[in-house]
Amino acid sequence: MHSKLVAPMLREYGDLARQMMFQYLPEREPRRWLYDLVADYPRRGGRAFRPSLCVATARAFGRPIEDALRSAAAIEILHNALLVHDDIEDGSVRRRGKPTLHVQEGMAMALNAGDALLLLSLRPLLDNWRILGPGVTLRILEETERMGRETAEGQAIELGWRRDNSLDVGEPDYLEMVLKKTCWLGMIHPSRVGALIGAGEGLDLEPFIGFGFLLGAAFQIQDDLLNLAGDEDDYGKELDGDIHEGKRTIMLIRLMERSSDDDRERLTSVLRRPREERTAEDVRWIRASMERHGCIDYAREMAHGLAGAAQHEFERIFAGLPSSRDRDFIGELPVWVIERA
Amino acid sequence: MHSKLVAPMLREYGDLARQMMFQYLPEREPRRWLYDLVADYPRRGGRAFRPSLCVATARAFGRPIEDALRSAAAIEILHNALLVHDDIEDGSVRRRGKPTLHVQEGMAMALNAGDALLLLSLRPLLDNWRILGPGVTLRILEETERMGRETAEGQAIELGWRRDNSLDVGEPDYLEMVLKKTCWLGMIHPSRVGALIGAGEGLDLEPFIGFGFLLGAAFQIQDDLLNLAGDEDDYGKELDGDIHEGKRTIMLIRLMERSSDDDRERLTSVLRRPREERTAEDVRWIRASMERHGCIDYAREMAHGLAGAAQHEFERIFAGLPSSRDRDFIGELPVWVIERA
Repeated sequence: MHSKLVAPMLREYGDLARQMMFQYLPEREPRRWLYDLVADYPRRGGRAFRPSLCVATARAFGRPIEDALRSAAAIEILHNALLVHDDIEDGSVRRRGKPTLHVQEGMAMALNAGDALLLLSLRPLLDNWRILGPGVTLRILEETERMGRETAEGQAIELGWRRDNSLDVGEPDYLEMVLKKTCWLGMIHPSRVGALIGAGEGLDLEPFIGFGFLLGAAFQIQDDLLNLAGDEDDYGKELDGDIHEGKRTIMLIRLMERSSDDDRERLTSVLRRPREERTAEDVRWIRASMERHGCIDYAREMAHGLAGAAQHEFERIFAGLPSSRDRDFIGELPVWVIERA
Repeated sequence: MHSKLVAPMLREYGDLARQMMFQYLPEREPRRWLYDLVADYPRRGGRAFRPSLCVATARAFGRPIEDALRSAAAIEILHNALLVHDDIEDGSVRRRGKPTLHVQEGMAMALNAGDALLLLSLRPLLDNWRILGPGVTLRILEETERMGRETAEGQAIELGWRRDNSLDVGEPDYLEMVLKKTCWLGMIHPSRVGALIGAGEGLDLEPFIGFGFLLGAAFQIQDDLLNLAGDEDDYGKELDGDIHEGKRTIMLIRLMERSSDDDRERLTSVLRRPREERTAEDVRWIRASMERHGCIDYAREMAHGLAGAAQHEFERIFAGLPSSRDRDFIGELPVWVIERA
């Protein structure tokens, strides 16, 4: 099976959500010190996965696209705000093919622009009031606060592992971190908000946590695999950079579990050293050990398993709804997540 | 005239607002990497000026204190969020007698904790719904978004002056920056939100911009004067630090305007140099020049003039309300702002 709908519909809904987003990014002074920076990441494009999932879910539940576009735009604005801040926190130097905002404008200005984006994302959510009424409007704001909390917790956990060089991270820890850091903003929140818009306050939103978690975890593991296996030009980041950074991935966690005592000791001593003291030889050795112990295949199978379970959850949630292009789009996402090269 | 009510009422309302605030700061995992950091600045105390002004305004308009406490707590949470981020942006090393959060925990963790605080401030505002109804609840959220925008603009302008070493900053530029950076979150927003709670959606909130601007500008100029004249132990920062940093203040702007061509050239060349190349001799010379040209007296008179005008605005807004301790508290603020040593 291949996903056919996903790419064209991401383009279609992405364009509409971006148009709405730009209506909410002010064009006024101070431009050079604030509003040019605020619009910088949004102008660089991106896949628009989150707003598209929000719009498609609302439509799958029978609500017209216009009713979801403000919420979709808010999600994309918030996503961009957190990208700006994450890039500062991670010391990243490139984003969407250009220097990161803090590299370009200085850290202080970029941080402040991220705060402005965060607060600007409230505006479209408040404008929902006129279309969706007070009840759903406030529920969406509550969802936004919840998502913000989950995301900050996930980011804190990953930053904590790195700062304190935690060596006892297991698979359940990894999956909990991904649930919070990746899945909540990426999948759970857009589909819950879309469902709220589409079906109103009466719908039970609990199942979307499972669906979004399974989909998002498959997505993240695939992303980590691409860092090992992908083509450097396509991927736009340094290959094996995750290994060099000591990033906790399923592959690294598996390797830690599968290694002999001697190898585990060597691995631990590499991870204990600061990033700049890890050599190319260290990275090659870890990479080869991962292959020897089948860690990469293991992660690939896990991603497939998670995507299959997401497919199953999709059917449980969406089976009762009338057939539609939007429902099919959401149904193809688990396959698309795995197919991404 | 002396302010008698201000200090005790700041303690009284500050305690109540802080109690409410801590109800909204979660005590759960990850503590060491997130929620301990989130609660750090709030636990350090502070004057609680903003939440007290919000509560007092609501009460002056006849609404009970309980109805304003959630909004007051939200304002204090947001203020703490911005303190964490400002300290990173300004490279500050001390806050309320201790190392700043990013010095203590690393920049990445502190930035993320600031984001969490920002988003957590939404929660009490959403809980307003049950007490204040949907209309006022949404209006307060709109006010919050507006305030966030103004504050980010003000911060961007001041960061921009510093980054680009702007030499053509005049008094109107300074006052506009202070309006946005200091007055909006410090005075305008708390009193507008308090008035919304106290008087409902029908009241014209425009006059609170004037009142808050005059009060806040007097406050800021007094703060800048204290940096020049205060006692180092009380003040808790390096004296004359503003001069060393090249901070644009009324005194510096006035000096630039009043200097002879030669002196202006010397001043410009000092400001052009990076902070660490400015000597103690430079600072002494600027300080002496400010005194010679009466710049310090000029700023003091300006602060007094602004406070007097704030007093006048207070009477215009609050004259029609029944006499109350809360009304008197607000009426004493212009004097208190100037009295602070």
